[in-house]
Amino acid sequence: MKDPYLFQHKHILSIEQLSPADIFHIFDTATSFKEISNRPVKKVPTLKGKTIINFFFEPSTRTRLSFEIAAKRMSADTFNISASTSSAQKGETLIDTALNLEAMNPDIIIIRHGSSGAPALLTRYVNAGIINAGDGTHEHPSQALLDMMTVQEHKGTIEGLKVAIVGDIAHSRVAHSDILGFSKMGADVRVAGPATFMPPHIDTLGATVCSSVAEAITDADVVMALRIQKERQDDPLIPSLREYAQFYGINKSILRHARPDALIMHPGPINRGVEMNPDVADGSGSVILEQVTNGVAIRMALLYLIMGTQGV
Amino acid sequence: MKDPYLFQHKHILSIEQLSPADIFHIFDTATSFKEISNRPVKKVPTLKGKTIINFFFEPSTRTRLSFEIAAKRMSADTFNISASTSSAQKGETLIDTALNLEAMNPDIIIIRHGSSGAPALLTRYVNAGIINAGDGTHEHPSQALLDMMTVQEHKGTIEGLKVAIVGDIAHSRVAHSDILGFSKMGADVRVAGPATFMPPHIDTLGATVCSSVAEAITDADVVMALRIQKERQDDPLIPSLREYAQFYGINKSILRHARPDALIMHPGPINRGVEMNPDVADGSGSVILEQVTNGVAIRMALLYLIMGTQGV
Amino acid sequence: MKDPYLFQHKHILSIEQLSPADIFHIFDTATSFKEISNRPVKKVPTLKGKTIINFFFEPSTRTRLSFEIAAKRMSADTFNISASTSSAQKGETLIDTALNLEAMNPDIIIIRHGSSGAPALLTRYVNAGIINAGDGTHEHPSQALLDMMTVQEHKGTIEGLKVAIVGDIAHSRVAHSDILGFSKMGADVRVAGPATFMPPHIDTLGATVCSSVAEAITDADVVMALRIQKERQDDPLIPSLREYAQFYGINKSILRHARPDALIMHPGPINRGVEMNPDVADGSGSVILEQVTNGVAIRMALLYLIMGTQGV
Repeated sequence: MKDPYLFQHKHILSIEQLSPADIFHIFDTATSFKEISNRPVKKVPTLKGKTIINFFFEPSTRTRLSFEIAAKRMSADTFNISASTSSAQKGETLIDTALNLEAMNPDIIIIRHGSSGAPALLTRYVNAGIINAGDGTHEHPSQALLDMMTVQEHKGTIEGLKVAIVGDIAHSRVAHSDILGFSKMGADVRVAGPATFMPPHIDTLGATVCSSVAEAITDADVVMALRIQKERQDDPLIPSLREYAQFYGINKSILRHARPDALIMHPGPINRGVEMNPDVADGSGSVILEQVTNGVAIRMALLYLIMGTQGV
Repeated sequence: MKDPYLFQHKHILSIEQLSPADIFHIFDTATSFKEISNRPVKKVPTLKGKTIINFFFEPSTRTRLSFEIAAKRMSADTFNISASTSSAQKGETLIDTALNLEAMNPDIIIIRHGSSGAPALLTRYVNAGIINAGDGTHEHPSQALLDMMTVQEHKGTIEGLKVAIVGDIAHSRVAHSDILGFSKMGADVRVAGPATFMPPHIDTLGATVCSSVAEAITDADVVMALRIQKERQDDPLIPSLREYAQFYGINKSILRHARPDALIMHPGPINRGVEMNPDVADGSGSVILEQVTNGVAIRMALLYLIMGTQGV
Repeated sequence: MKDPYLFQHKHILSIEQLSPADIFHIFDTATSFKEISNRPVKKVPTLKGKTIINFFFEPSTRTRLSFEIAAKRMSADTFNISASTSSAQKGETLIDTALNLEAMNPDIIIIRHGSSGAPALLTRYVNAGIINAGDGTHEHPSQALLDMMTVQEHKGTIEGLKVAIVGDIAHSRVAHSDILGFSKMGADVRVAGPATFMPPHIDTLGATVCSSVAEAITDADVVMALRIQKERQDDPLIPSLREYAQFYGINKSILRHARPDALIMHPGPINRGVEMNPDVADGSGSVILEQVTNGVAIRMALLYLIMGTQGV
């Protein structure tokens, strides 16, 4: 007789740490929480009296807000700290800052940090549960979970699907988490992008590198465009946005290669006309806003599940 | 038999949209909520489980705080987003940002934006109720409502009163909303200010343009000074603050033209000694701080009333 | 027969205002609240429906967060205002800003301000209770209370202890509050630091000025290092951080002069290797993180006690 499944992760640092059983369990939990956000009274007492700190070293609206909404809908007390107001600028080390937060007895610390591995580092020093909300170019696990949940809802399964990811694969923690996650769940993941955006050894993550967008999205069930970081536009890695849009932008024409029922995804915020054309972003296959809605549900599930591992 | 009154505004974008019956109903609702803020326990469960987002593209302390206090005293969950941390700087369009917020199922979005019409634009895209907390030089309806409520409380009526508004009429959304509101409620509104601050066709809003402050405030029941935006002082529209104070500042001397029981009003923050002298701001006729107190009550009423139009 | 003790402070502006009986009562109250932060449900309804405003004119993470956590664990509604978003930049006076806050019926305003005496000034204008969270170089009473509580917990008493404070005595509000507090509770307080950091007439606060760190910490029961403000490093008051560390940094070697069971304290954030070496900060005598934990408990006690003086 098989042991009953038990979610055992005290921290959510990466997709890499999760098994398919974990991921299915997170989907199931998120699905059950999803309807709370559609109620007139969007609030359950599940995490009442829990202290949840949003600790963001990089600016973020949607991820921070998504976690904060998730936490408050479960009645937790939430606290926001951003790097610009934190002790970091006073010369304190990350570990000291974390130990100081820990001394105030938080239950969960959600951290976004520019350095890959920062959230993992903290788990060695604090008792609070840590959720990685994006670390450097490493991972952004809650994003990949909401992406996968959205595909699972529409297609009924991830296994056997063809998933194309287009853009800056090398510098995107979203891409890394998605490649790991979709591969782990049995999808065939293909990536395409400018050579300067393609990391060496990407195949070790589980993706097939394609030499053109057309090749990557041929027969694809899912087409995901990554965000071009326009704010880093002086970056010499791409010659121009116009050229990028021409060769790597997702538009109606290139989509003829994909399956007619392909899901169109983007982690947001979108640069319309650069990595994706408006008629695609707003078209019938687009599930971009469902990704956002599922984001709140996934984060409610993560908060709930890791609290469950802390005992009471 | 007359139909019973029903508040039917899902959004509060302007004074222009409101009828006198609406405005009276908002006053009545605000009056009933006002006493909550004087209780030892300043909290009612009315909006428990509602998600209210303060979305401010321009810095604001008092308006944001007033809405946040109003929301929390009604037990809503509140979330603050400011432009400096929002996706706006990442190149996302306002509509995309709004659609992303919408995907997290907020009940009400309170927005302040530098562009006139931005809140109205959003109502075409989101299901949440929208409250305009100031848009460009267009309107700031909750401010005019709290101004009118304060006058109504003191004078018993607005109809037939003489209301003088002094200052930068052209660039003030407060002035626009107040002119529309007081006129609609039957007051005789007169405006005065430097010619560079006087918009063309101001009479179409319902105000009489006067050539001097003395003329505007003669026999006035209400004297309202607008704020000079000192932070835009390099603005060549006024030659100097000293000269402005001399010709347009409200002081005891000029007030001899008004009625002895005239109410002194200012939307704040005050530049003491510029648009208003301290002895006037702190004098017996001043209701400036009552405006602030009524602001919380008006915003509680608006949140409550527009939630009521959403069904359950 | 002696009158029963009654806490009568409506505001907490300084250690100077508190009697030893007040301080003992704050300790007792904080101790009773401390266990709330260790519960699975870290929340009591004590301050439900109270409005508490954190009004910070200087950046702060830990003090602001500590007060916010304290308030929310007692179910108060909390609001954060920082100087960068406040009306201060619009030219409003501090008193006008405070009166505007007051008009929104807050119960308690917690203020940090760069000017010594700013919190005291506000008490003359507002009805809300005021807590000084640090004003200029004057006082930071909640910090001294949490420092003293930590010593009291470990040593059972403060009376008769030798307490050494090392660093920038002249510019540190923490030092001023600690000198006043520990002296008041019967400790023998000695201070050491560069001559440029030693204010004249420091003895009038109750401390003995020592000519070297070794002298100050000889037989000390408590060794507290103050923070060097690295961000003001262009300050010519110290020749270099390296030299400061050599002569005034707390390290294992200098600690041989102190009692073997001496408590090591620091108000944080620490500049490791400057005012304190890592082996000391992380050593067996260090109670630095307990200070942080007690900070939440002390602030819960202060909020509770001053609310108790407001009647109901």
